Parts: sequence; structure tokens; C-alpha cells
Amino acid sequence: MFKSILIIGCGMIGSSILRGAISQKISKKIYVFEKNKKYRNQIKKINKKIILIKKLDKLLESIDLIIVSTPMSEYKKIIVKFNNFLTNKTLITDVGSTRNNVAKLIKRNLSKKLNWILSHPISGSEASGPKYGNKNLFKNKWCILIKNKNKKILVNKLSRFWKKLGSKVVFMNEREHDEIFSVTSHLPHLVAYNLIKTAQDFQKMNKKNIIKYSAGGLRDFSRIAASNEIMWRDVFFNNSRNMSKIIDLFIKNLNQFKIDINKQRNSLLLGKLKKSKKVRQQILLLKQDVSKPDFGREN
Amino acid sequence: MFKSILIIGCGMIGSSILRGAISQKISKKIYVFEKNKKYRNQIKKINKKIILIKKLDKLLESIDLIIVSTPMSEYKKIIVKFNNFLTNKTLITDVGSTRNNVAKLIKRNLSKKLNWILSHPISGSEASGPKYGNKNLFKNKWCILIKNKNKKILVNKLSRFWKKLGSKVVFMNEREHDEIFSVTSHLPHLVAYNLIKTAQDFQKMNKKNIIKYSAGGLRDFSRIAASNEIMWRDVFFNNSRNMSKIIDLFIKNLNQFKIDINKQRNSLLLGKLKKSKKVRQQILLLKQDVSKPDFGREN
Repeated sequence: MFKSILIIGCGMIGSSILRGAISQKISKKIYVFEKNKKYRNQIKKINKKIILIKKLDKLLESIDLIIVSTPMSEYKKIIVKFNNFLTNKTLITDVGSTRNNVAKLIKRNLSKKLNWILSHPISGSEASGPKYGNKNLFKNKWCILIKNKNKKILVNKLSRFWKKLGSKVVFMNEREHDEIFSVTSHLPHLVAYNLIKTAQDFQKMNKKNIIKYSAGGLRDFSRIAASNEIMWRDVFFNNSRNMSKIIDLFIKNLNQFKIDINKQRNSLLLGKLKKSKKVRQQILLLKQDVSKPDFGREN
Repeated sequence: MFKSILIIGCGMIGSSILRGAISQKISKKIYVFEKNKKYRNQIKKINKKIILIKKLDKLLESIDLIIVSTPMSEYKKIIVKFNNFLTNKTLITDVGSTRNNVAKLIKRNLSKKLNWILSHPISGSEASGPKYGNKNLFKNKWCILIKNKNKKILVNKLSRFWKKLGSKVVFMNEREHDEIFSVTSHLPHLVAYNLIKTAQDFQKMNKKNIIKYSAGGLRDFSRIAASNEIMWRDVFFNNSRNMSKIIDLFIKNLNQFKIDINKQRNSLLLGKLKKSKKVRQQILLLKQDVSKPDFGREN
């Protein structure tokens, strides 16, 4: 499919792309640029064919496809390298979780002759680092591609790449993307972080070890709140407008629940609790989660 | 261990006790009282030895151990039956998720000569109904027993019962219990319900199908928010004081996160996000969850 690809930043997501690309024979040559020494040692063990490069320099010119999978806060520095060494022959993409900020960053900073199409594969876990990569991570998962009228051929090329890795490709514009994922991903993560912080505060104030009783619900949130902090800081900062709006709606609703509970509004509360079951049913129908009770988890 | 036990209310939790009691040969005779006809048909299929009774009447007198596993809102009616038909020879327990309200209810309504020791096994799932019961549901899970100075022998007897089902028994008073579980269980459930409600509101306002993109975080909350609404209404109503306090702390913290994000307070935010990883590590150390990334879930 490609003569050469380069993965810049090879943590959990980058190494999943790497593993998928090897398994699907997507490219003759696969280059990896990764600054973390521990990660580099883990990457070497994945496959002998991987070429680890130490600099982003004139080699870039020869690459067909570059996938940037560093935290988004690294992009500015990387764009300088691209402007210095790339031509329009290379297709660039990335996997950042917010899109409007990157669309703007590219518009302002990337050389006009270069081609960067934005991707966002909806896959991941709380684990960080290349050893947690998985060649099937993208299988049957959505991958959002940001529309680009003037570069339809390149968008289609990138779409074929993600499909090769198993993704189901959907097209959106960057604003639509950031709005939708502020609700389905960014708010859930912030809420999980906030719940764990609240439990930590309670523990500190009451000097009680409550974490050992987390199996009643808290443990699920602790998994999400163990996600990579650099990545999530970048997401929260870059999608702060949509976040603010949805946080406000969330707090308004939570205050209303508090009132309903304190006023013992029976049928109203019952109706609200019952209604949320529909979302779970829909998610299972759409095969967006495992259908076994408790995720089939056994511990 | 017992000549006869009776399970009143045989949904997911009741039928897990039932299955565990059969498998551990805890009692010669096992009676079940269940009002739901569909549930009764499911229960019959579990084991031929189960005796389904249609009324709570003078048969009660002959029972060694009664486990009430109905929603807590049913207790008042059941206590009337106990007062009519039971003697001090029967040990009563229940599995309700809040304990202060039930301690008070018993004090006020249960005949003084009767013996009710409160239990709360920390196990469950979002699934309702006896067909989702599991004989190993309590294995290696905490079961909280509420201290009772005057009935130490009975408390110990009940403790042996739960240990037979695989539980690790811990003793607390009812106020301590309700405070701790408001944080580790009740708030997480309310927050999950509230997040799903917020997503539903957003969907309605924006006329966008966002549920299909739930794999980025929302789906985990949808599982918890698919829990039994009767049970959770009872919990929220009965623990409203502790709930109010912890909701307030949660909202205060969330507003602070919003400010940190909008003011781009980098190191502060990063520090907070990083700190919550410790809770996950602690939970895994205490074997309160599966250690595989993403719960080992594959869909």
C-alpha cells in the first residue's frame, strides 16, 4: 500500500498502528521516531524490520505516510520539522482527540504546500506505552476523518489505510467532531477524574480507607481516571469551550437530581433512572460494548 | 449449617444467594418467596429442591434464617408479616445498600423479641432478575455486617453464613457504612445516571446521534446507569443526607476543574490528573478489580 511509513510518537496508540501495519503488510519500510528510551527498547522487540530513527531530518522527504501520535502539545515543534524537510509527496495524519485546534494550528503554521489530513481513531485504554499496543485495537472501531474538499484523493487514500487496520471510517468537520466527543468522551473522562479526586478529598478529610470498598462502583471510574494525564490535559485545554458548556449542563442536571432526591420526588426520579437504560440498550445494539453483565469481568 | 432458609425477593442478588446456598449445602430446605411470576418460572429451573411459597404465613415460624433481598421500599410490609408469624428462634437479615434507614425502621417497627442483623454484600451488576444470579457472586467480595453488641452470637452465626458463600466479612456501624458507601458506590451511580441524562439532553437539543460514538468513555457509565431503578431510587432516598454532602463536594471540585481548564492552569491540572492514578494502583493492589487494561474487554 505504501513504500514507507513513519510513526512519530510510539506509545500505546502509535504502537498499535505499528503492529497493525506490520500485520497487514501496509508498508515495505516502517520507520519510528520515539524520544523515550524505555519505549524505544520495547519497540525494538516488536519486530526486527522496524527502523528506529533518531532525528526528524531530510529522511522525511522519502516517506509516503507520516502518522503523528504524540500528545498534541508536541505538534508545534514537529510542524517546524515538516516545513523544513517535507514536500507535497508525503501524506501526513495524526490521531489527536480534538480536531478544531489542530485544524487551526495547521492552517497557521504548516507550509501551504504540505498535506495533512486529520484522523481520530476512537480506540484506546487506560494503559500507556508501546508494550500495551495491540494490532487489533482499531478493529470494528470508528475512525473519524476530517473532511477536506480540496484533498479528496488524499482523504480517500487515508481512509483505505484505516480500513486496512480494521476501522470503520466516518467523515465529519472539525467543529462537529469536537462537539460530539466533548459529550461521549471528554466529559466522561473529566467526570471520572473528578469523582476520584472527590473520593481522595473525602478520604483525607475523614481519615478513612474507603478505596478498599471501591467494588460498588468507584473502581470503574478509577480505570478511566488512570488514563494518560498529558494526553487528557491537552484534550481539556483544546476543547475548553465545548467542555464548559457540557460541564454546565451536567452540573445543572446533577443539582436537579439532588433536589429530586431531597424532596423525595418518587415518580419523577424513577422515570429519570429508568430512561437511562435505553442508552445502554442502544449501545449494545450498536455493538459499542460487550453485552455480558459487568463487562464479563471476573476478579 | 441450617435446617431451613427462606429468601424473600429473589432477583439477581437473591438468586445468587440461592445458588450459593445450594452449592455450599448451607441448608436442608430452601424456601423462596417471590412475587414476580416470570422470576418464579426462572427460579424453578435452578434446582428441583427449591420450595416456592406463595404466602408469608405461619410457615415462617419454622425457618432458621430469613434473607430479605427485595428493594428496601418493600420492608415495611414484610415487617408486619414478621411481627405476626415469627419468634426469636429465627435469624433475619437483609442485603440493602443503605443501613441507617433500615436500622431505624427495625427499631421502630419490628417486634422487640425478633432478631434482625443487617448485612450488605458488596457485589452486583447492572443485570436484574434471577437468571443473572451467580453462585460465585460473593466470592472474595466484602460483606459488611452491622455491629450489634447485644446479639454477638447471632452476628457471628451470620458471619459464618456469608463466609460460606465466599465473602470477606467486615463489621461497621450503620452510620459509618452509609457515609463510606455514599462515596464509593452511591455517588458513582448517581453520576453515571446524570452523565447519561446529560448525553440524552444534548442529543435531543442537537438532534445528533451521539450514542454510536460512546466507545470513547460514555459506554462505561451507561452500564452503571442501566442498574435497577427501584433499588437505586431507594438508595438515593435513604441516604439523601450523605448524598447531598458528597454531591456538593463533587460539584465544587468539578467547577474548580472547569476554572483550571479555562485558565489553562497547566501544572495544577496535570498534577490533579496524575494524582488519580494512585487510586487505580491501590484498587489493583487490593484486588478490587481486574488488572488487564480496559477490564480485558473485547468487543
